[in-house]
Amino acid sequence: MKQLVSRLLDWPRQHKMRIIVFTVMMVMILVPTIFASDASHSESAGHGSEAATTFLWIVIILVAAKLSSLVEKVGQPSVLGELVMGVVLGNLVLLGIYFFEPIKDNDIITFLSELGVVILLFQIGLESNIHEMKKVGVKALLVAIVGVVVPFVLGAYIVGPWIMPGLGSNAYLFIGAALTATSVGITARVFKDLGKLKTKEAQIILGAAVIDDVLGLIILAVISAMVTLGAVSIGVISWIIAKAVLFLVGSIVIGQLAAPFIGKAFSKIHTGVAMKFTLTICFGLFFAFLAQKIGLAPIVGAFAAGLILDPVHFRYFKDAKVVRDVRKELKDIHPQKKRKIVEAIDSHSHRHLEDLIEPLAAFVVPIFFVMTGMAVDISTMFDPKILMVAFVITVVAFAGKMASGLVAGKGVNKQIIGWGMAPRGEVGLIFAMIGKQLGVVNDEIFSIIVIMVILTTLFTPIILNVLLKKQK
Amino acid sequence: MKQLVSRLLDWPRQHKMRIIVFTVMMVMILVPTIFASDASHSESAGHGSEAATTFLWIVIILVAAKLSSLVEKVGQPSVLGELVMGVVLGNLVLLGIYFFEPIKDNDIITFLSELGVVILLFQIGLESNIHEMKKVGVKALLVAIVGVVVPFVLGAYIVGPWIMPGLGSNAYLFIGAALTATSVGITARVFKDLGKLKTKEAQIILGAAVIDDVLGLIILAVISAMVTLGAVSIGVISWIIAKAVLFLVGSIVIGQLAAPFIGKAFSKIHTGVAMKFTLTICFGLFFAFLAQKIGLAPIVGAFAAGLILDPVHFRYFKDAKVVRDVRKELKDIHPQKKRKIVEAIDSHSHRHLEDLIEPLAAFVVPIFFVMTGMAVDISTMFDPKILMVAFVITVVAFAGKMASGLVAGKGVNKQIIGWGMAPRGEVGLIFAMIGKQLGVVNDEIFSIIVIMVILTTLFTPIILNVLLKKQK
Repeated sequence: MKQLVSRLLDWPRQHKMRIIVFTVMMVMILVPTIFASDASHSESAGHGSEAATTFLWIVIILVAAKLSSLVEKVGQPSVLGELVMGVVLGNLVLLGIYFFEPIKDNDIITFLSELGVVILLFQIGLESNIHEMKKVGVKALLVAIVGVVVPFVLGAYIVGPWIMPGLGSNAYLFIGAALTATSVGITARVFKDLGKLKTKEAQIILGAAVIDDVLGLIILAVISAMVTLGAVSIGVISWIIAKAVLFLVGSIVIGQLAAPFIGKAFSKIHTGVAMKFTLTICFGLFFAFLAQKIGLAPIVGAFAAGLILDPVHFRYFKDAKVVRDVRKELKDIHPQKKRKIVEAIDSHSHRHLEDLIEPLAAFVVPIFFVMTGMAVDISTMFDPKILMVAFVITVVAFAGKMASGLVAGKGVNKQIIGWGMAPRGEVGLIFAMIGKQLGVVNDEIFSIIVIMVILTTLFTPIILNVLLKKQK
Repeated sequence: MKQLVSRLLDWPRQHKMRIIVFTVMMVMILVPTIFASDASHSESAGHGSEAATTFLWIVIILVAAKLSSLVEKVGQPSVLGELVMGVVLGNLVLLGIYFFEPIKDNDIITFLSELGVVILLFQIGLESNIHEMKKVGVKALLVAIVGVVVPFVLGAYIVGPWIMPGLGSNAYLFIGAALTATSVGITARVFKDLGKLKTKEAQIILGAAVIDDVLGLIILAVISAMVTLGAVSIGVISWIIAKAVLFLVGSIVIGQLAAPFIGKAFSKIHTGVAMKFTLTICFGLFFAFLAQKIGLAPIVGAFAAGLILDPVHFRYFKDAKVVRDVRKELKDIHPQKKRKIVEAIDSHSHRHLEDLIEPLAAFVVPIFFVMTGMAVDISTMFDPKILMVAFVITVVAFAGKMASGLVAGKGVNKQIIGWGMAPRGEVGLIFAMIGKQLGVVNDEIFSIIVIMVILTTLFTPIILNVLLKKQK
């Protein structure tokens, strides 16, 4: 018995050729069993059935995302591959393949996708630095304001009424509003993929995107009030602005104060890596929660949390086991040499905050981008008239954000900033959806906004990639 | 303006004392704002509202779990702390605190909890080794069989019906089944904490615990079929066993064959840590999915996947950046010395498969244990009769596993093996939960099993500690 098992387990190694026959046999037995048992077992097994199906969707999304990394071979950032892979998976239904459709409505995948973009912005916040951000503060503010005002005016008062005459003024307001959005996730990923997060351009775009979110919140509140109440009070707007500013300033001040205290307190319970990781991630998620409660996007909170956290807050945690192990081996080596080696290893321990988040990010971030791609409905592009109008609106979308690049001041590449602000992503869609819910945005306008969002989202990585590589 | 912001942000560092007043002010403003805006904004904000609330629950669960690590200070495994913390959070409702109640019904938390136990078993599989398991051999198999049969017979046919007369026979079956479990995680952690993993006793216990898991899951499949199908024919049992064996043998054979191929293929796309991590986790989740499709628990698949995966499958991935960095510093050092240092660092790279999973595990595994604790309804423990029964069942739990120690053969401490097999941990709770879902295990029996699990988990480290020190 024991020998039989032993031989069976060693078989694959010993019989490389014959094993193929066995594998085909096993697959022929297992596959029908698996899919035949689907119907009969889904009720009786019960426990974990839904979760297990979600495991399969996660595996499909992650493997697809990793296959899409092939775009890096042609010099494109991997985020583009993930988006395109999502577009493909999401539109296979046009070819009669319905297999992947349940992913779109899966609540857990949707949550993991949301968690993904929150973790991404938290990571980017961790890699950014408050003091660097402060240096570009005024520039970012200017870029944000111009990047909101120009597209809004163009969309709501000039190009909108010109290319789509005869709509109510409220409809033009929503087109303008959708054009103001900045979805920082895609731009941030491109900069991260290319290792350009430390550039001045990246800092300005990140700062401007946070300010944009606050401005977008105000615009949304104002035009919603104008549509539903017909007018808008200064008091309501002031309160919205006050809350947002209070949150951002308050969270940074309190966070900076609380982080070292929390770090020290929990290090007394345990000084392991798991504790450090948990504290870090909880900090990010709690700020994402707070931001949403205040009416801001959760990603803004996560980004702020990342900005606040600093490795020094976790100096009580000793995770550099490798340092101790190597030190043993270094006993009788020249002190100068010894110091250098320990420093080389230490530099890895210091990066640990980001490194600890990395595996969780590798798990959830691709889900966000594949899901973003899956939300693209290619069939909206089948109507040539709508497609024409959408192209014009897309040109306005790019032009409006290009204008924001012009006020970025000296010493930075204005084009990179302009294109970097361009992706509208989910934020633009939220405006369109709210407009639709209010009965102001009809199906045609909705499709036009969706196409504009698709095009700004898909083209930006390609163009940014060219610009960033040219800059170097 | 810029200076004002700058001074405001630097304030916390400069004015340690005055900041407290400011913090109190901010909290007084923010907290009512956040919770007052809950109702008014939940409709208008819409987007991300549900996800953000789930972020809060995750933060609460993880922080609670980490606080519970304090039990380690009194020599208890942290898993016990997480369970107890879950019991506390889940029963605050008895004190009129309803705040944490929504966690129990949150689908996403439930999913993350399920993912947690799958990841845990995947980790344990990764830490185990097919070849080491083979060496443990006949002794472990005997210990496992006796450790399953004796507690099952005692629980399901003798002590169960005697102490709890009048229940359906299915209920006794689940009590017996829950008594068969051995928690690999808890057992391994106890021995590791005591530095006794290399002893012969530890090897036998680990091997037996692994076999116990498989036997237990066959028992689970059989009694689940008996409950859902009313009766069970030899044919059905044989088919369940055949499927389980087919799956385990098939997955090990195919997996061992496929893993190097998959590793090599994907390494051609990318050789980074993220790719390695993604492949590893996808391997585990895919096997979890397959197991569930075959009618087994997802954790069996995850464990099998972990058993199959070996660092050698990922030899094409270069994640040991630290090795390269240090090598630079080692240029003119004696080759003998150099080799030793590189080996010391390398040993960390080799453990990378487990290390990569660790942060994800730190994120989801505590959710499983806290949620398990939250499922405990303390009010059923108020009944002295239930408490009495639970004590008797706990004695049976210890006695049944003590019997397994008697067949461990010569040259080993039979008592240590008996007590080492005793913790029921999450496996026993899974039986209880499935029984509850099937409507067979009522709240009283569930509480009895949970008390038994907590007691076997609580007393084992204390008793083992005494026995192992006496042995030395």
